Amino acid sequence: MSDFRAAHYGEEPLLLPNAWDFASAAALAAMGFGCVGTTSLGVAAAAGLPDATGLARDATLALARVLAVLPVQLSVDIESGFSEAPEEVAEFTAQLVELGITGVNIEDGRADGALADPGHLAEVIAAVKGRCPDLFLNARTDPYWLGLDRPLERSLERARRYREAGADGVFVPGAVTAADISALVDGIDGPLNILFSPAHLRLADLAELGVARVSTGSLLFRASLGAVTRTAAAVRDGAPVPADLPAYGEARDLIERYRA
Amino acid sequence: MSDFRAAHYGEEPLLLPNAWDFASAAALAAMGFGCVGTTSLGVAAAAGLPDATGLARDATLALARVLAVLPVQLSVDIESGFSEAPEEVAEFTAQLVELGITGVNIEDGRADGALADPGHLAEVIAAVKGRCPDLFLNARTDPYWLGLDRPLERSLERARRYREAGADGVFVPGAVTAADISALVDGIDGPLNILFSPAHLRLADLAELGVARVSTGSLLFRASLGAVTRTAAAVRDGAPVPADLPAYGEARDLIERYRA
Repeated sequence: MSDFRAAHYGEEPLLLPNAWDFASAAALAAMGFGCVGTTSLGVAAAAGLPDATGLARDATLALARVLAVLPVQLSVDIESGFSEAPEEVAEFTAQLVELGITGVNIEDGRADGALADPGHLAEVIAAVKGRCPDLFLNARTDPYWLGLDRPLERSLERARRYREAGADGVFVPGAVTAADISALVDGIDGPLNILFSPAHLRLADLAELGVARVSTGSLLFRASLGAVTRTAAAVRDGAPVPADLPAYGEARDLIERYRA
Repeated sequence: MSDFRAAHYGEEPLLLPNAWDFASAAALAAMGFGCVGTTSLGVAAAAGLPDATGLARDATLALARVLAVLPVQLSVDIESGFSEAPEEVAEFTAQLVELGITGVNIEDGRADGALADPGHLAEVIAAVKGRCPDLFLNARTDPYWLGLDRPLERSLERARRYREAGADGVFVPGAVTAADISALVDGIDGPLNILFSPAHLRLADLAELGVARVSTGSLLFRASLGAVTRTAAAVRDGAPVPADLPAYGEARDLIERYRA
């Protein structure tokens, strides 16, 4: 069992922070995180592309290549696979595996707010796992995320189908209450991944509920955007600029430290 | 006279915040900044490359292409020009002009802490301005930045040579005291660009000293890195996560708003 897979079965949940470029991933590696994910919103936004629309395939592959030098296990968010054809998605994940990527995240939500046919994602999952059996495939199901009716029942039904198709874990972003999360832990037979929500449960609470993996999704990317806006406004308005920033030399050394 | 050039001769200094990817630049555009620069540290770090070593040529060009859709005037940091050959630097800047870039910043400091021969940078400046006469060329001189002896005299001498070669403005990062900045304003015959330093003078102070342009350099990028680290640590440690972040929808809409 790979370290990454094992981290989903430990005593504590795997906290997987999500990066969107080399600098953010290197900062997380330097903090001691041994596993780092990517956030499709951040990756797409950094490249000037909309999220979850399948346009960020090349940017995602290029990023995976750049991140592969870092001493961390990487899980790459591949949106809905960047193709409707299962074999093309499998081909894409094989390219990621060749770069040393450990896991992928693939979702059934679509940018238009609809859910894809679960049978289709099941086919994609089977194709990917057939081609890349050791890749940790996290299947994301979006009934909560998209605000649909009966999200628990729908999530459980989809989780079952994705697990049967070979998914290694299930990700249910948007489930935030202890009741919902507890029901998901009970009703899904594999490791459950929850999206951290600052306004809801803390990591320790999620651990107690039996969550296997906690992702930060776009949180760190949005924290970065917020810092850009706040800092630029402070300079413009003559307000104090927060002093707790890495110095130029620290930022430079961070990159140099992990250079290939 | 272009708006960008005119902004160097207004009543107030031009505040030029520096971005490193589409998302950071779009956030600045959405704040109302009409001119945005790039930070070579941020651009290189996002791509996993060291700063000021000439390796980020392709990343810089790719970024310029992506940023060109934004409704702002763009000044691109081209380190020392990504080539020692003046004609190659001129060719590179011509490619930037073709993309709609308004200005460039070119420096005489080298990654090893030495200053380049000023005669060489003067030749490069002449080649660039010969090829792209309307491009606003900001010549950066690094005696202060590199902590060298007699930085004021050296900066003034270099500024004179770069202006004679055709530079439109002069950038002296690392000059932070009112006395030094005042002497630079007095001794340089063109628009003076100063690097904002959070621990030193505010924008209004710099305006009073006669500074024409104030850049944030790597500040916003470092603020972003700091936010990543702080936010990831808060999630890990069960500490409160700052709530003043853009929401997922806001971040998505920011990108969508400026999509080509």
